[in-house]
Amino acid sequence: MSTPSESPAAMRAAAPLVQCITNFVAMNFQADVLLAAGAAPAMVHDPEEAGEFAAIAPVVSVNIGTLSPRWVEGMLEAALVARKANSPWVLDTVACFATGLRRDATAKLMQVGPSILSGNASEIIAVAGQASAGRGVDAGDTVAAAEEAACKVAKQVGCIVAVTGEVDYVTDGEKAVRISGGSSLMPQVTAMGCSLSALCAAYAAAV
Amino acid sequence: MSTPSESPAAMRAAAPLVQCITNFVAMNFQADVLLAAGAAPAMVHDPEEAGEFAAIAPVVSVNIGTLSPRWVEGMLEAALVARKANSPWVLDTVACFATGLRRDATAKLMQVGPSILSGNASEIIAVAGQASAGRGVDAGDTVAAAEEAACKVAKQVGCIVAVTGEVDYVTDGEKAVRISGGSSLMPQVTAMGCSLSALCAAYAAAV
Amino acid sequence: MSTPSESPAAMRAAAPLVQCITNFVAMNFQADVLLAAGAAPAMVHDPEEAGEFAAIAPVVSVNIGTLSPRWVEGMLEAALVARKANSPWVLDTVACFATGLRRDATAKLMQVGPSILSGNASEIIAVAGQASAGRGVDAGDTVAAAEEAACKVAKQVGCIVAVTGEVDYVTDGEKAVRISGGSSLMPQVTAMGCSLSALCAAYAAAV
Repeated sequence: MSTPSESPAAMRAAAPLVQCITNFVAMNFQADVLLAAGAAPAMVHDPEEAGEFAAIAPVVSVNIGTLSPRWVEGMLEAALVARKANSPWVLDTVACFATGLRRDATAKLMQVGPSILSGNASEIIAVAGQASAGRGVDAGDTVAAAEEAACKVAKQVGCIVAVTGEVDYVTDGEKAVRISGGSSLMPQVTAMGCSLSALCAAYAAAV
Repeated sequence: MSTPSESPAAMRAAAPLVQCITNFVAMNFQADVLLAAGAAPAMVHDPEEAGEFAAIAPVVSVNIGTLSPRWVEGMLEAALVARKANSPWVLDTVACFATGLRRDATAKLMQVGPSILSGNASEIIAVAGQASAGRGVDAGDTVAAAEEAACKVAKQVGCIVAVTGEVDYVTDGEKAVRISGGSSLMPQVTAMGCSLSALCAAYAAAV
Repeated sequence: MSTPSESPAAMRAAAPLVQCITNFVAMNFQADVLLAAGAAPAMVHDPEEAGEFAAIAPVVSVNIGTLSPRWVEGMLEAALVARKANSPWVLDTVACFATGLRRDATAKLMQVGPSILSGNASEIIAVAGQASAGRGVDAGDTVAAAEEAACKVAKQVGCIVAVTGEVDYVTDGEKAVRISGGSSLMPQVTAMGCSLSALCAAYAAAV
């Protein structure tokens, strides 16, 4: 495993194929972000091929931003194949608190055990089974308010949990780091959070 | 209700959650336009959750640009929930004259009674049941040629009708205003019209 | 038919309606590229309307980048209508070697007989039934290695085959041209290849 300062070069050297099952809003931007970082994105979502492709790709990035039952099937198949192959897979639980479809999809995907769970504070609080103040796709809770939930989920699932916000909080349930350096303009541009979780997937495969 | 010059500030203050069921081409651009204006877009389309989410969102923006039967179901459910809750909902009838699927979807959606109907001249003429000269997604008629159709639909449905073009024509069937100030480059960039109708939705909820 | 130097003006004069059935990643970018070139893009994909619309559009552009069985149905219906009407249609076989769904869809679409087949070297080699070194959506073969496959497919199907790469190779099976002039940054931006095949469709209809 490379150190953080070596990671960008390691990523470019590995150029990992990242299977993305993501939302319609972020797809183009997310693909360009992955390309810019040196990864090789491939958007392959349908249950007819998602599992088959996951057997080829060294990592899978799942994002529930725009959901339908058939896409959830594809997500589950790809996640199961990745899990079985001991490949990393990342889950971004966009607006997981908002509807029954999202709550059910999130519960099923969490049972497969993602390597990394990424979400805003309200999403992580909801994944932990607690009441969140999220509205639409936006967090209504502070990152600090989600730290306990993040640790709980990380320990239960055995995964890394990243709570995104002004200062991100990342934990494996024992250790934790805070990552600053974002811009207040980032929430004003759609697909930023989605691209971040896809980048996490690329790095998980490459370094 | 705020005056037009107060509206942008009122929008930023309200930051309304706008549920968008829109086409694949415009989704990213439309989300960014809504964010830039101060609204909070959420793309939630599937019949499994569209109605449930419409009960949370103060406004729904429906755009038939890329259509399939399942998406029409989601549009109808969200529109019905909005209507029942007396929340505004906006219909953008992209290329509604082009195919049977589009004509049927438009007829069903119009029966739910949108608060605002937005379309180019050929689309509004087609909604009024008259023969239009539209081709593909482009208008083949002048805005002036659609004014009578716009008034007729506005009165029948009890909604605002916006005919978009070089100079937009907006009417409730009694009064009318003409809005100029666009650029001849706007038809050269896709998703401009779609973003306009989504903005109408945001303002309908906020001011 | 106009000469190459006259073609851009001929395109702007004709402003052909291009029906695109393409992937979610490229849709927005591809529409803007077509608009910039003077064509009129329309994204109409569902089997419920794809064939009906293909009867109106002078050309159909099919791209299998993000696939599902229902979209394949729509592609086949549009292609069949175009073929029957002697209208050109273009096939871009993104990652056709990667999964069974893609191989089957490509085989069925090739049976309809595209006017132009566009793909990277690994894709064209796979269409010719040979073993390719493609990975994800990227070519693992050189353009030179695909020239024989391109000629074979062009003769068998009676179509133009374009192998895209650093220097494109375009052949009808007898004559061939090589087209240089791209940028090494182009593979770093998603949707470039997709836009190219859509442009081929627009020119096929216009000049």
